[in-house]
Amino acid sequence: MPENKAKKLSTDSYKGVRDFFPEDMAIQNAIFDIWRVTARKFGYEQYDASVLEPADLYKAKTGEEIVNEQTYTFIDRGDRQVTLRPEMTPTVARMIAARKRELIYPVRWFSMPNLFRYEQPQRGRVREHWQLNVDIFGVESINAEVEILNIAYDITRAYGLKDTDFEIRINNRKIVNYILHEVFPLSDEAAHKLGKLIDKKNKMKAEAFDITVREIFQDSKASIPDPDVTADKFLTLLNSKNFEEFTSHLPQTKEEHEGLKEVRAVLAALEKLGITNARFDQTLMRGFDYYTGTIFEVYDLNAANNRSVFGGGRYDDLLAIFGNEKVPAVGFGAGDVVARDLMETYGNLPKQTGPADIALLIVGEENAPFAFEKAQELREKGLRISVDFSLKKTGDKVSNASKRGIPKIIVIGDDEVKTGTLKVKNLSTGEESML
Amino acid sequence: MPENKAKKLSTDSYKGVRDFFPEDMAIQNAIFDIWRVTARKFGYEQYDASVLEPADLYKAKTGEEIVNEQTYTFIDRGDRQVTLRPEMTPTVARMIAARKRELIYPVRWFSMPNLFRYEQPQRGRVREHWQLNVDIFGVESINAEVEILNIAYDITRAYGLKDTDFEIRINNRKIVNYILHEVFPLSDEAAHKLGKLIDKKNKMKAEAFDITVREIFQDSKASIPDPDVTADKFLTLLNSKNFEEFTSHLPQTKEEHEGLKEVRAVLAALEKLGITNARFDQTLMRGFDYYTGTIFEVYDLNAANNRSVFGGGRYDDLLAIFGNEKVPAVGFGAGDVVARDLMETYGNLPKQTGPADIALLIVGEENAPFAFEKAQELREKGLRISVDFSLKKTGDKVSNASKRGIPKIIVIGDDEVKTGTLKVKNLSTGEESML
Repeated sequence: MPENKAKKLSTDSYKGVRDFFPEDMAIQNAIFDIWRVTARKFGYEQYDASVLEPADLYKAKTGEEIVNEQTYTFIDRGDRQVTLRPEMTPTVARMIAARKRELIYPVRWFSMPNLFRYEQPQRGRVREHWQLNVDIFGVESINAEVEILNIAYDITRAYGLKDTDFEIRINNRKIVNYILHEVFPLSDEAAHKLGKLIDKKNKMKAEAFDITVREIFQDSKASIPDPDVTADKFLTLLNSKNFEEFTSHLPQTKEEHEGLKEVRAVLAALEKLGITNARFDQTLMRGFDYYTGTIFEVYDLNAANNRSVFGGGRYDDLLAIFGNEKVPAVGFGAGDVVARDLMETYGNLPKQTGPADIALLIVGEENAPFAFEKAQELREKGLRISVDFSLKKTGDKVSNASKRGIPKIIVIGDDEVKTGTLKVKNLSTGEESML
Repeated sequence: MPENKAKKLSTDSYKGVRDFFPEDMAIQNAIFDIWRVTARKFGYEQYDASVLEPADLYKAKTGEEIVNEQTYTFIDRGDRQVTLRPEMTPTVARMIAARKRELIYPVRWFSMPNLFRYEQPQRGRVREHWQLNVDIFGVESINAEVEILNIAYDITRAYGLKDTDFEIRINNRKIVNYILHEVFPLSDEAAHKLGKLIDKKNKMKAEAFDITVREIFQDSKASIPDPDVTADKFLTLLNSKNFEEFTSHLPQTKEEHEGLKEVRAVLAALEKLGITNARFDQTLMRGFDYYTGTIFEVYDLNAANNRSVFGGGRYDDLLAIFGNEKVPAVGFGAGDVVARDLMETYGNLPKQTGPADIALLIVGEENAPFAFEKAQELREKGLRISVDFSLKKTGDKVSNASKRGIPKIIVIGDDEVKTGTLKVKNLSTGEESML
């Protein structure tokens, strides 16, 4: 017999993950509904996979170190290294690659997986979270970007934000590469360093940022002849106030650079759609290595909580790790934790509704069978019926129904069984009506 | 830079788990809908928790061995032993125990978790599956059983089975204990052995079963004076054709045994509800140690596939492992794999519907912005709109819409942009109408 551990076992969940009691689940379901309804409006189909994935799936792109340190990875008894998925993009790439020839393009898919990251739990950074993933595959033109940004915009609006509450910031990896490798011919190492630095710009003091930029240029004397002057030029470019100013600091070529053309076209298309809170942001980098073109982030402009809330971009190369030819892809991931925060901040959390439309209160145990029958008849009409067959006093039953948020009650006692007529009472108005 | 693993990485999922491509996800969602809608009709509220649970949660009831051999259990870097939940009951018990004092009873909760078991994958036995869990807490009377059985019946009917396609078999742990310990005063060890044997009865030849029963009685000579005669009596009892015959073989006492009374009352209440395919089954055991009263299983009577499809019962002691006083509980778990099998067998799989209500086919790239605008207007009316902005010929676009199962199309070319009038074409009837 197993050891008796009575009075020992904790009721806490595992560290860094959440229990969803019904009132939390109702909010979670409201978020899932926003995600599902919005994605479906754009013709996206839902897919899913297991949280367990072969660890190799992540090593291919992110390297051994990240897999071991930031993910839940363990060896199973078949000696397979298995990872609890930390993101969905490698999984969807795997699934697309598996059916590459059978699919009709463009493929529009969405998913709402739970993801795991092995990190110290803190506000907004739990070890398990849910994330909407929306991706379109097989489109090379910026129509894909426009559609994905349209969905991202609709999702943010559905959270309860007005146009003035947020901003969609857009950049393009092609521009980033053009700046760091061509306009400023930095070494790969220096370009990489500078890229990482820009990614952290918003979290740094301006002075510290400028000093570090100058250091990187100083260290790049080999390819940059006049590092101080060049660093100034770079900082001027980086501090441009808008897209037009930014392009004015770039070499004027006959044909505009592809990345610049894409940004221009995306912003114009969004404006035509009435999405006027999108803007170019040359400092937007996004960490993931797999982006190849447009990148974007939705920013909450709330003074108290200015931050990136979710983002995505174009990643045309990801399927290459499966030995396939390229499949163009654009997509984003939006998490549940920030969704809940936003809905709370902007007063858009769903009202908690009761678990039933009517509570049937049984008075006298012998009347239970009749009540069960009536309950079933009402359920067949589509109503949610909760039967109270407790031995509590009728008054307590009424007050429990009210506490639970059930709006109406039907009392079933001897009279009701005899006559067969039932009265529905509305608990907030006191009104009674025959069923 | 990470090593390039091109042309190496497999597109297979991890062993024993499933990918849900959209056509599979549609079926999965149909199952989830049946579960959710049915549970809610009875006033049940949804909850959830993480798949990660402290391993101690399972050790408390099932013992060290089962936790290590049949579950995914690993040590995290904080030296915590963590398990991927193999069942939901310990989790819901943990959550109820955590809020025991604040909850209003009866508590009616349901969940649709994914569960993990570390076993060799085979038909119907995957390593990850989803399971509806429905539980009612705080009710000592058999009203709880009647409601839970009513839900189990409704779920099975919603899968597409008629009353004649299945049977609800009912037993009671109190009767089992009464038979094995009092009517036949076996030692604890012999009673345990015999219980396990009865659990396997349906999978054994009758002769082999009888022989093993006789052996157990022979080994129990210490407490059973005339083992051969007693084994005969036991087998006669066990082979009873129905509840009345079964009780007739039992000692006739002034007051009927509590377990028998409960079975009688449950069957009568179900009959009153019009559920006439429930019957007593004295050989029903159900493996889980935690059941304390009524146990039940839904059986598919399909000749080709006669089997238990899901079940549950009363488990009044489970919260004790948290050091709490007892909370009466009745519930069941129903899996997705068998649900899908049943829906397939009984011709009730959902029709695959297209990902959109209308496909907007763009003719001429320059008309994309207009199409995007129109698409968005239609979405605001609640329609699911898929925009085809590929560079394919219009005929190919029409045929793709049809292949995808999208029932209607709108072509957007120069004319439509000029006049602003759009024609909707129904692909199956060929009918056209103005928007």
